[in-house]
Order: sequence, then C-alpha cells, then structure tokens
Amino acid sequence: MAFRYQRLTRALLDDIQKGRWQAGDMLPSVRQLMQRLQLSRATVLHALGELEAQGWVEAQPRRGYFVNPRPAKAPTATPSSLEAAPRLLSIDDVVHDVMLKGAAFDLLPAESRFDAKPPAIELLHRAISRAMRHTKGAQHQHYEDPAGLPELRDTLAHRLRQQGCTSQAADIVVTHGCQHALLLALKSCTQPGDVVAVESPGYFGTLQLLQELGLKVLELPCDPATGLNPADVAKALTQWPITALVLTPSFATPTGALMPLEARLALAALAKQHRLTLIEDHIYAELSFSSAPLPPMLALAPEHTLLCSSFSKSLSRDLRLGYVAGPAFTKRLAQLKQITSLASNRLIEQGLDEFIRRGDYDRHLRREQQSLRVQRNALLDLLAQHFSDCHHRVPDGGLCLWLNLEPELDTLALYQRARQEGIMITPGPMFTSQQGLYRHCLRLSFAHPWSGPRRQALARLRVLVDGLKRGGKSEI
Amino acid sequence: MAFRYQRLTRALLDDIQKGRWQAGDMLPSVRQLMQRLQLSRATVLHALGELEAQGWVEAQPRRGYFVNPRPAKAPTATPSSLEAAPRLLSIDDVVHDVMLKGAAFDLLPAESRFDAKPPAIELLHRAISRAMRHTKGAQHQHYEDPAGLPELRDTLAHRLRQQGCTSQAADIVVTHGCQHALLLALKSCTQPGDVVAVESPGYFGTLQLLQELGLKVLELPCDPATGLNPADVAKALTQWPITALVLTPSFATPTGALMPLEARLALAALAKQHRLTLIEDHIYAELSFSSAPLPPMLALAPEHTLLCSSFSKSLSRDLRLGYVAGPAFTKRLAQLKQITSLASNRLIEQGLDEFIRRGDYDRHLRREQQSLRVQRNALLDLLAQHFSDCHHRVPDGGLCLWLNLEPELDTLALYQRARQEGIMITPGPMFTSQQGLYRHCLRLSFAHPWSGPRRQALARLRVLVDGLKRGGKSEI
Repeated sequence: MAFRYQRLTRALLDDIQKGRWQAGDMLPSVRQLMQRLQLSRATVLHALGELEAQGWVEAQPRRGYFVNPRPAKAPTATPSSLEAAPRLLSIDDVVHDVMLKGAAFDLLPAESRFDAKPPAIELLHRAISRAMRHTKGAQHQHYEDPAGLPELRDTLAHRLRQQGCTSQAADIVVTHGCQHALLLALKSCTQPGDVVAVESPGYFGTLQLLQELGLKVLELPCDPATGLNPADVAKALTQWPITALVLTPSFATPTGALMPLEARLALAALAKQHRLTLIEDHIYAELSFSSAPLPPMLALAPEHTLLCSSFSKSLSRDLRLGYVAGPAFTKRLAQLKQITSLASNRLIEQGLDEFIRRGDYDRHLRREQQSLRVQRNALLDLLAQHFSDCHHRVPDGGLCLWLNLEPELDTLALYQRARQEGIMITPGPMFTSQQGLYRHCLRLSFAHPWSGPRRQALARLRVLVDGLKRGGKSEI
Repeated sequence: MAFRYQRLTRALLDDIQKGRWQAGDMLPSVRQLMQRLQLSRATVLHALGELEAQGWVEAQPRRGYFVNPRPAKAPTATPSSLEAAPRLLSIDDVVHDVMLKGAAFDLLPAESRFDAKPPAIELLHRAISRAMRHTKGAQHQHYEDPAGLPELRDTLAHRLRQQGCTSQAADIVVTHGCQHALLLALKSCTQPGDVVAVESPGYFGTLQLLQELGLKVLELPCDPATGLNPADVAKALTQWPITALVLTPSFATPTGALMPLEARLALAALAKQHRLTLIEDHIYAELSFSSAPLPPMLALAPEHTLLCSSFSKSLSRDLRLGYVAGPAFTKRLAQLKQITSLASNRLIEQGLDEFIRRGDYDRHLRREQQSLRVQRNALLDLLAQHFSDCHHRVPDGGLCLWLNLEPELDTLALYQRARQEGIMITPGPMFTSQQGLYRHCLRLSFAHPWSGPRRQALARLRVLVDGLKRGGKSEI
C-alpha cells in the first residue's frame, strides 16, 4: 500500500479522520495538491477518486471535493416506477453495448458510418480471394497446424526482428485477434488465483479476461504521458506475489501513453530479476507518429515476454488475425490455441501473408500513420474549441487520448445520455476494476476522419456535459 | 462406483485378491465373460483395461489376460542411450502431433493428400470473394457484433428449427469452430472444480478443455452402437454433483454411435429433473446416412441444452466457423465470445450465409452423405479383407468407426511404428483420461476416398499390427 496515490489517499483520510477537515469542508483543489505535494494530476485524481469511492468525500459541480458527513452511508437505490430505457447494470454491460454498436473507437455507432473502403483493404481482399482461387487441393479437408501458417509466422517473425527482437517463426502462434492472443498468453503463464498486475487506467478486455480466468488483479497507476513507472512495479513486486504484468508500452488504451526507453530497460531488468512474465500488448505499436519507434519489451527481455498483437487496429478489425510471440512458452501456446479453437483460417492467413510480402501492408501503414496524425490534430483543435477547460495529453501515436472532465462529472451518466442521441462514448470506469475511479474521464478516439457528423457529435457532447453538470450527478 | 464395468472390475479384483486367480493364471476370455455375465464387449474390455491400468493383470499376445505377480510394481523406465526418434510423452503430445500433421481424420498426413477441391468449396470461396468485393463501406473499421452476423444467425436458427428446435437468431452465438463453441458452452455453465460427465470413449478435445478449465471429469461408458445409457447417467446423478454432461448423440467420435430416440427422451427428462445442463456436440449430425435424422437434445430439452456445432466436418475444416445455441445462456455466451476473441470475421460469415441461402450447402450435404456412405462401405470391405478378426460396429453416419484390436495390442506403440512409415492413426488412449483404457482400440475414419495410397496404408497397418504382436508390447 505504498504507491504515491495510496500515500496521498491515506494522508487525506488521516486529516479527515483527525478532524482537520470536517463534514462540508472543501478539500484543496487538484491543482493545489499537485503543486504542494509535487504529484502528477493522475496521482491526485486517483487518490481523490479512491476517497470518493469509499464515501469519504463528494465531488460538487464546478467547485471541488467536499467532505461527507459521517458515517458515510451507501445510498439506497430507489427504482423509478417508470423506467423508460433499460438500465446498464455493470461495466461488462457497457462494454457489450459498445461492442454491439461497433463503436469501440468512434463517437458514432457502426450503422451511421460513411467512410469509404480504402485501397489497401481492396488489395487485402483481392489477396485473400486469390488464395481461395489458387487452392487446388484438399486444403479444406484438414486442419491447419494449430500454431498457424508457417509462411505467415515467418513473415511475422521477420517484422519482429526489424523491431529488434530475435524472433523465429517457431516462436509465434497465430490467433483470432489480440484478445485471443491475450487469453493464450495469460493461460500459458498463470494459474487461477495468481496475482496479475495491469495498467490503471487500462484495457477493459484484459480486466475481463482476468476475471474470467480467476486471476487476482493489481492495478498499477499509469501516467497518461509515460505509462507505468518501473519504481511502482518494483515496489509492487516486493509487496505481492505477482506472476505476470500486462502492459501496453506503446500508445496504451485509454491514455495513449508511451513508455520511454529508460523505463523499458528498467522494467526488463525487473522482469529478469524477479522472473516476472511481461504480457506485452503490442497492438498499437505500429501506429507511431515518430520515425524511430522504441523497442518492444520482447526485444529487451525475450525470455520473460509474451508479445500479443493483431492487425485489427492497423489494418482491419474484421480480419480476426492476431499472434502471440513468446519463445519461452511456444509449446504451451500452440497447445492452448488447439484447445481453444483448433486452428486458424488458412486462406485468410495466406491472403494476409501475400499482402504483407508484397509491401502493401507497409505502404498502408505509412498512409495510416499520416491520416491518424491529421485526425489527432483535428481532434486537438476540436478539444481546444469545445473542451478547453479539460485536461488531456497529446499522444504521439495510437488511436486515442484520455480526457479529464471536471472531477464531479459522471461519464457513465453521460454515456446513457449521449446514447439516447446516437452518440457513443467509452466512459472512464470501463478502464478499471476499482469502483468509482475515473468516473470523470473519457477515452476519445481519433481513429476516424472528423467528418461533419463526428464534429457535430463532439460539439453535442459538450452540451450534454454542461447539461449533466447543471442537473447534478446521476447514478448508473 | 456402480457402473456395470466398475462392478465387473471389482468382482474380478476380488477374485484375484482372495486368491481365486493367482499370479500367472489366465482370466476367462472376453467372450466367456460377455456370455457368462450378459455384459457387452465394451463393458468387459473397460473392466479388463481398468485392471490392467492398475497393474493387476497383463494382456499377452493372442492369448488373453494374465494375473500379475504382486505387488504390482511400476516398471522402471530405462532410457535408451540411442533414441533415434523423439518420444511422445503424453496423449496431449499425440493430439498435437496428429493436428500438426493435419491427419485427424485420415491415415495419411496432409502433405500427401491428392483429393481435388470439390465444386461446393469452389462455390463457397466464390461467395466469400463476392462478400469481399461488395464491401463498400468502412466494415473493416469496426468489430462485428460479438454474437456474430445477424443474417447468418438467422439462417442457422432456421436450420435448427427444421430439426425440431424452436431456435431464434438471438439464441445463437457464432464461434471460431466447434471447439471454441464447446469452450464457451462449458464456461457458460460451470465453475472450476465442478464435475462434468463425458462419454467414454469420447472426443479428446473435450477432455483437454475440461483439464484446461479446472473441471473434474466423470467418464460414462459409451456403447459403440447406441452411445450413452440414460440409466448410467441417472445412476451417476445420484452419486455425484454433476453440473453438465457433454455428449454427441449423433455419430459420436470415436465410436460413430447413434443414441436412439427413447434414450434421448429419457435423457431430456433427466436433465429437467436434475437441472443438468447438456452440452450437445452436434458437429456430425448432418452427416446421417438415414433419411430421418433424430431430433437433437436442444429440441427435447431446450432450457437445459447448449448445442455446439460447426461446418468443419460437413463442409470445410478451414472455415473456422461454428456456433453455439443455448436459449438459457445467450447473454453469457455472447460475453464469453467477446472476452475470448472479440468477434468473428464478417466476410466469411457473409459468404457462408449466402452459400447456405442459395441452397448450395444442402446440395453439398446430399452429395457428401452419399460419398461418405460409399467410403464407409469401402472401409468395411477393407476391414473384412485385412482385419476380419477385429470387432467393430457399422455406423450409420459421421466420419469414423471404432476398431477393437486384440486386447494385448498397444495402439500407442502402433502409432509410433506407423508414423515412421508416414501412416497416421488415432489410437484409443486419445479418447479417455483413464490410463490404460482403450489401448487396444483405434478410431478409423472414412472421411476420405479409399484411393490407392490409403488402401495401401490400411493393408500396411495390418502388417504392422502383426509385427507388434510378434514383438510383444512396447511402451510409449
């Protein structure tokens, strides 16, 4: 219990319990706490969120955090007699709803999309169709090697070597996307009941997997600019029996953070020293706006890393092809692939492999990086216009940034309000397992061009935020 | 502990322990035990296998079962100083090896296949290519509904209704094949530590899943002709807290058994009475040689059944598209699909849906059923020619039959011997978690035409069997 935010939580709580601040008192502002204690905004908000979750303080619109009368009582739920819309009952429901709407990285649900199919997808589909036409033999009659098409694994290994890894085709298992890769990675190195550390805020799919696999989660605070702090990891390792650490060193969702090289090196050293398995979510790494990407953890601690990735963020969400690379776990990974889904679709693998080998994927990536940079900049302009009072960092890659609304704003309520108008958001609480955390935060994606309807949706979101503030908090 | 085979095991053991049979004595023959005790061959072999596994008796070539000197000692492994080939260490390794060779349903590994691509696969591939060409919008930019393409789910529900179910699209979740469907089904209705009953002998993929999910397995004897006996299930339910029963009522692997209607009705009643969840592996059901297929368990006990299937056995192993239908579990299934792999490949789904809706799938099935019947008959002829001394049943559908070699034959040794000559078999021990069971059994598939090389492989297998018998038993 000795992360910075935890120390701050305890210090503030101490002051409340000793009567320094009493019921109705306003706590120092976030800015004051940051300056006075030399802490990051993330740390301060983390601590205040914790206190709010425990019922000690309450955020008030446009004012700040106020101490609650004690004993803090759980509010009694009074079901409305006329519930117009079905209510979302849990974060899992929100995730399911967002997925169902095809809106994980958009303000608009899938049915209202209007972007055209880019030439690269045309080329990819042609390559897959060619693979289908050229199949002469009885390929449909037998299952692919569970580990995946050897040629594609070779191509993937080649790409990883270009990023500084020593990967071979034999180290790689092809999966049905990155989520499936994370499943295999987690199962290959943990047993139910093990402690797994994750980034906070972090990817909701990882949290769901941990719950599903009966693993204990330890959330480590993640700076929106630089990601995990190795000192926090080191401290956690002395306190808890951590088996694995799931992290996204490059352009993590939801923050877009990029771990600097020194932090990566320090983490690699920790992994070796403590025999800690790093599960590296690499899915956004090829979406870097800088010309010199940082080496993945797999390059720095190969024996202790399971790198998970897919083509869903960089090429097509619909391809359902990912991979996991972990030289120390290969046999177990292939076995888990076979047990969970037997094999992959070879024709898709062949088409993708041809697409990559012809250089079409790299050409597509360069265009995609440019488009994303343009779209990020357009989002920054829109934020300056509509959300100038809200804090965020400027990510140098990936698909999203992390918007801090005023502490009292409840983005779960905003989610429900926006949804009624056909606008989809991914509210902060989706990215943590700790109740009450990140309630005022929002992931915003720049995965799509800022066409008229998306601009309007963002402008409208501002109006909804203001409306919520006037109307006060509402519960999920 | 009161199945017929268990009672026989105990009775025989009792006789041995009381000295009625002593070290070196020969037990009554399988045929004698069958006639004397009015038991099926499967039951007697099950019991003798159990005694052999426990070290009480030993099978001797062409003679029978002999009582071992006591105390039965585990043989000391003496590693050979010159091991020419790597040894297979476990059943999991055999499964992996078979999968790697693409030989799950063939005597020949994938690389030596010569069958041409049938017209139906050509049509299917064209339909998928059409789906790719006709994608105009930004489909690649968002994830499919985790439950799968609504149109395809509608088509699948329609097919299930034709089989007597009341399914709707909303009851169905599309998966990456039947193995993935079984994973979701098991996870949706069990917790680690629960007892799950399965058929014995039964599908190895189910056994692997149970182990992976931390579930306890209870193997119920499965008659090669009629499958599970509801009386055995009823008895087991009074003795153990069984959460789910995984079964393949139509043309189970490895036996090809078909559960009669009365047994299905009795099982449906048991499921309702005991709130037992039936996980129905439906993957071979459309490969029936009879004109009137029996209703699936989903039609008879809809609230207690999770039907799992795919197109891998009936159309293409490479498609990687399956589904699970369970009206009582739909929400949980969709959530598990999302957690384990996010979504499916919509273009494949669209192509398959068009293929089914145009009637191409049904035309293909009719041709396939005819071909399989011809291939089964050819296998029966070949067995009469080469294995006339071995017992088997004649399945009325599916892809395989279950060959009983002489009790002393070790098919794991045969597996290794055959593999050296490029012949792949699926030995009996792959289909049970109980050590020593089905060592003398073999699954033979008629999924492929009996072309010259496959005929030669089967003839050669006979020679290898005889060689093994002369050479005595060899350990895996």
